[in-house]
Amino acid sequence: MYGYIGSMRTSPGKREEVIAHLLKSLDGLPAAGCLSYVVSECPDDDDRIWVTEVWESAEHHAASLQLPETRAAIATAMPLLTGEFTRQETRVVGGLGLP
Amino acid sequence: MYGYIGSMRTSPGKREEVIAHLLKSLDGLPAAGCLSYVVSECPDDDDRIWVTEVWESAEHHAASLQLPETRAAIATAMPLLTGEFTRQETRVVGGLGLP
Repeated sequence: MYGYIGSMRTSPGKREEVIAHLLKSLDGLPAAGCLSYVVSECPDDDDRIWVTEVWESAEHHAASLQLPETRAAIATAMPLLTGEFTRQETRVVGGLGLP
Repeated sequence: MYGYIGSMRTSPGKREEVIAHLLKSLDGLPAAGCLSYVVSECPDDDDRIWVTEVWESAEHHAASLQLPETRAAIATAMPLLTGEFTRQETRVVGGLGLP
């Protein structure tokens, strides 16, 4: 399984709006192979969002970026972001709620 | 909800063994308020493990560290670790598989 741990910074005051966009775009992800998708606020940085994801494979994750709802969420959120991202890919071995 | 994103480094060659200990200690966590617990290998560091967790609250997470199986897993794993940890706490807003 493929894991992704990433953060993004929003323009000041835009975090809540971006999080809402992200959470609205999740419905189609399970069918695309998403096993877990968690959206969080960073408690020590008012403009940072953390996202942790688990996918059946890296290919499933890559393909999901072409889903209409994912492309729409990215297009909507991008103007509200500063462009500062962190990203860590992982090889998921197991855990609660995972096959 | 409370989120935790952390990594730990093992002594060379001990990663698989530590991951096995971690995965064996998960059974009691849902009853303790754990909503997600993912254990992963770091693909660009052979000795690093990533763990991402979601709990009902920070208090549930703190209390879980006193569970016998959690204390046993920590005691067993600690000698196999180098002591190099990273940790990021988060405020989980929502996601797939979460209430």
